[in-house]
Amino acid sequence: MRIYDIISRKRDGFELTDEEIHFFIEGYVRGDIQDYHASALLMAIYLNGMTDREMVTLTLEMAKSGDMLDLSAIDGVTADKHSTGGVGDKTTLIVTPIVAALGAKVAKMSGRGLGHTGGTVDKLESIEGFDVALSPERFIETVKKTGICVVGQTGNLAPADKKLYSLRDATATVGCMPLIASSIMSKKLAAGSQCIVLDVKYGSGAFMKTKADAEELSAKMVEIGKMAGRKMAAVISDMDTPLGKNIGNSLEIAEAVEALRGKGSADLREVSLTLASNLISLVKDIDCREARLLCEKALDDGSAYEKFLEFISAQGGNTEMVTDTDKLPKARIIHKITAKEDGFISRTDAEKIGSASVILGAGRVNKEDTIDYTAGIILRKKTGDKVKAGDVIAEFHTNDERLIAPAEKTFFDALTFCEAKPEKSELIYKVIR
Amino acid sequence: MRIYDIISRKRDGFELTDEEIHFFIEGYVRGDIQDYHASALLMAIYLNGMTDREMVTLTLEMAKSGDMLDLSAIDGVTADKHSTGGVGDKTTLIVTPIVAALGAKVAKMSGRGLGHTGGTVDKLESIEGFDVALSPERFIETVKKTGICVVGQTGNLAPADKKLYSLRDATATVGCMPLIASSIMSKKLAAGSQCIVLDVKYGSGAFMKTKADAEELSAKMVEIGKMAGRKMAAVISDMDTPLGKNIGNSLEIAEAVEALRGKGSADLREVSLTLASNLISLVKDIDCREARLLCEKALDDGSAYEKFLEFISAQGGNTEMVTDTDKLPKARIIHKITAKEDGFISRTDAEKIGSASVILGAGRVNKEDTIDYTAGIILRKKTGDKVKAGDVIAEFHTNDERLIAPAEKTFFDALTFCEAKPEKSELIYKVIR
Repeated sequence: MRIYDIISRKRDGFELTDEEIHFFIEGYVRGDIQDYHASALLMAIYLNGMTDREMVTLTLEMAKSGDMLDLSAIDGVTADKHSTGGVGDKTTLIVTPIVAALGAKVAKMSGRGLGHTGGTVDKLESIEGFDVALSPERFIETVKKTGICVVGQTGNLAPADKKLYSLRDATATVGCMPLIASSIMSKKLAAGSQCIVLDVKYGSGAFMKTKADAEELSAKMVEIGKMAGRKMAAVISDMDTPLGKNIGNSLEIAEAVEALRGKGSADLREVSLTLASNLISLVKDIDCREARLLCEKALDDGSAYEKFLEFISAQGGNTEMVTDTDKLPKARIIHKITAKEDGFISRTDAEKIGSASVILGAGRVNKEDTIDYTAGIILRKKTGDKVKAGDVIAEFHTNDERLIAPAEKTFFDALTFCEAKPEKSELIYKVIR
Repeated sequence: MRIYDIISRKRDGFELTDEEIHFFIEGYVRGDIQDYHASALLMAIYLNGMTDREMVTLTLEMAKSGDMLDLSAIDGVTADKHSTGGVGDKTTLIVTPIVAALGAKVAKMSGRGLGHTGGTVDKLESIEGFDVALSPERFIETVKKTGICVVGQTGNLAPADKKLYSLRDATATVGCMPLIASSIMSKKLAAGSQCIVLDVKYGSGAFMKTKADAEELSAKMVEIGKMAGRKMAAVISDMDTPLGKNIGNSLEIAEAVEALRGKGSADLREVSLTLASNLISLVKDIDCREARLLCEKALDDGSAYEKFLEFISAQGGNTEMVTDTDKLPKARIIHKITAKEDGFISRTDAEKIGSASVILGAGRVNKEDTIDYTAGIILRKKTGDKVKAGDVIAEFHTNDERLIAPAEKTFFDALTFCEAKPEKSELIYKVIR
C-alpha cells in the first residue's frame, strides 16, 4: 500500500477502505507519511468529502492512535459531557454534579480556554487548591468514590488527531464537517465513557455559525458515537448571546454555584437541565421527561450542590470558596459600564463579549499565555432587556486599569440597541439522539 | 499576505491574484512556505482548476524564479523545439539542423531520458567526444557561429518548477492540465527563445494518453507562450506507435543521420518536416506551405545534413561517426526476433516497446541509473506490416544476454496481430498556433 495511491483515490472521489485509513493514520503518527502527503489528502477530503463509514473509521483510528482510557474498574454507568465551546458556558460545572447526584459516573477530561471561549479546567483552577492533574489511578479512584472527577487532558489522548489538527490549522482544512466530527469524537471515544451528551453551539460565539452547520455536525458525531457502541445525544443550543451573566473564570464558578443553589439565570438553568436530563435518560435508559424531573429535583433539593462540594473537596479545592463565593479570588478593579442611550438591547454578540473579557485578562490569545483568574465581565443587562441612559449594564473585573478602555470599545461593538422590545430567540434549537 | 488565506481562496474556488501567486512562488522557493502548504494548495488547484490568467502568471513566476537566459547577443531569430516525450522520438536531431540551415538560431536546452521515453542529451552523448555541458559563454558563441547548440539543462532554470514538480510527483497532483502546461512552459520561457514549436504527443507512449488531452495541453501552452510575447506553434502527433524504427541512443543517432540524408522512415520524415516548417514559418513570418518547401529543400539538398555535421563538430563530437554511422558504438549482441505467426501487425504499443528497450539497457528506471548507449531495438516491422511466421520483425541490441528474455516478453506484449490489413492511423492530428 502506498500513500500516493490513497491520495489519488480520494482526489478522484473514491471511498477509502478501512485498511487505507488505518495505513494513513498509523504511518502519519509514526512519521513514515509526511506532512505534505497528509495536507494533500486533507484538501482532497475537504473538497470531495467522506462517507459516514470513512468518517467512523477515521475517528476510531485516531482514537486508537494513543491511550484508550479503561474505565472498567468503575461500577455503574460512565457518562461524559462535551461542549463545542462558547462564552459564559459553565454548564459542565452544573451538569456533572446533577448527573453524579443521580448515580452516573463522570470521568471527564476537560480543556483550557483559547481565544474568546473559556475552558472548564481554567475555571476550576480559580478555586484555591483545586488539582486538575491527578494521576490515572487517583482519577479512577475519585470517580469511584465521589462519582465525578474532572482533569486536564493527558498528553497521549488521540495523538493522531493532535498532529492532524495542527496541520489542518496551518493548511486551511479545519472547516470540514467529517474532519471536525472525527476530531472531537476521537478524543471522546478515547476517554472511554459509555454515555455521551454533546452541547453543540451555534451563533457568533460558537465554532458553528449557523443552526444548519450545528445540526450537520451533531448528526455526524451522534452517528460516530453510536457506530462505536456508545449511547449518544446532542443538544443544539444558542451561542449568539453569552450563556448566563458571568464571563471569566472565578466569576463563572460563582455563577455556577448560584445555579446549583437553584438561583441565577434562566437560560443557564435551562441549557444545563436539558443536557443533564438527556445524559440521565441515556444512563438510566429512561425517557427524557422522566429524566428531566429527576434532574430538576436533584438541582432543587440541594443534592447536586452537595455533590459539587464533594467533588471540589475530593480534588483538593477549598470548599469555603464555594459555600461563600465572596471568598473566591477577586479582581482589584471593578469598573461599572453604563448605557449611553435609552432602548432595548437587541443583540449581545457572544464572540465580541468573549473578546472583551479576554482583553480584561480572562483568556488566552496564544496557548502559552497566562490568564488572570479573577478577570472578566458580569452582564447586568442582556438581549431583550430595557435600559435607560446611565443604567449599569455591565461590570468589568480586571487588575489592570489600562485594559478597561480597549475592552469597553469591544464591549460596545458587541451591543446593538433598538426601540421596540425584540423577539425572544430560541435557546435550544433541537436535540439529536 | 498569508499563505493560509491563499490556500483558503483557491479551496473556495476563487481566482488568485498575480500578487498571491507571486507571494506563493517566491516564499516557496525561499523556504518560508512549507511543502505541506504547497501540497494543500496544489490539491486545491488540481480539484478547482486555474483560469488562463492564473496559469500564465504561475508560469512567468516559475520562469523568473531562477536564471532567465539572455539570448540578445545572438543576431537573428532564436528558435526552440520541445517534445512532451516519446519512444523513438529523434526529431530534435533532424528539426534543429533543418531550421538552422535556413537561418534560425537554435539555442536549445534538452533533457535526459527517464522511464520509457528517451532524451536528446543521452543520444548526442553516444557520439564520441560530444560535450553537452558547455559554459554559458560557449553556448552563446556556438549558436552565433553555427546557428545551433544543444546542451543539458543548467541547475538554476525555473527552480520553483523543479521543487513543485517533485512535490506534485509525491502527492498525486501531477495530472493537472494548467500545472503541466505551466511546468513545461516555465522552462521554455526561461530558456529565452523567441519562436517555439511544441511536439505534443498522444497515445500509449506519451504523457497525454488521448488526443483530447493533448489538444487541451497544446492550447494552454500556446496561450501561455503568446501571453509571454513568444511566437508559438504546437503540433499534435501520434505516439501510440514508436516514431521511426530505431529505439536506443546510438541507434537513434544512426536513424537521424539516415533521415538527414533523405532516406529512412516516412513517419519520422513527416513529423520532422511538420515541426520544422511550423518553426520556420514563425521564424521567417511566412505561411506554412512556403516554409514546408524550404524545409524539404534543406533536407533534400544536403544543407541540413551539412549543418548537422557542423553542429556535432562544434560541440567536440567525432564527425566520422556521422559520416559513417557504422563507426558509432555498437552493442556486442545483436539478437534477431522472429514472428511466431502469420498476419498483419495491428498495434505496436509504444510504451511497451520503450520499456523493452529500457530492459535491454537503453534507458533509466531511476534518475541516477547509468545507461548503455549502444542498447536498444530496431523495428523491422511495425503497425500495418504483413509478416509470416519466422520473419525477422526486430533486432535487440544489448551487452547482456540475460536481458534478452525479459525484454522479449515485454516486446511481444507490445504487439497485436490481426488477419486483415489494419487501417492506417493518423500521424499528425492537428497543429495549434
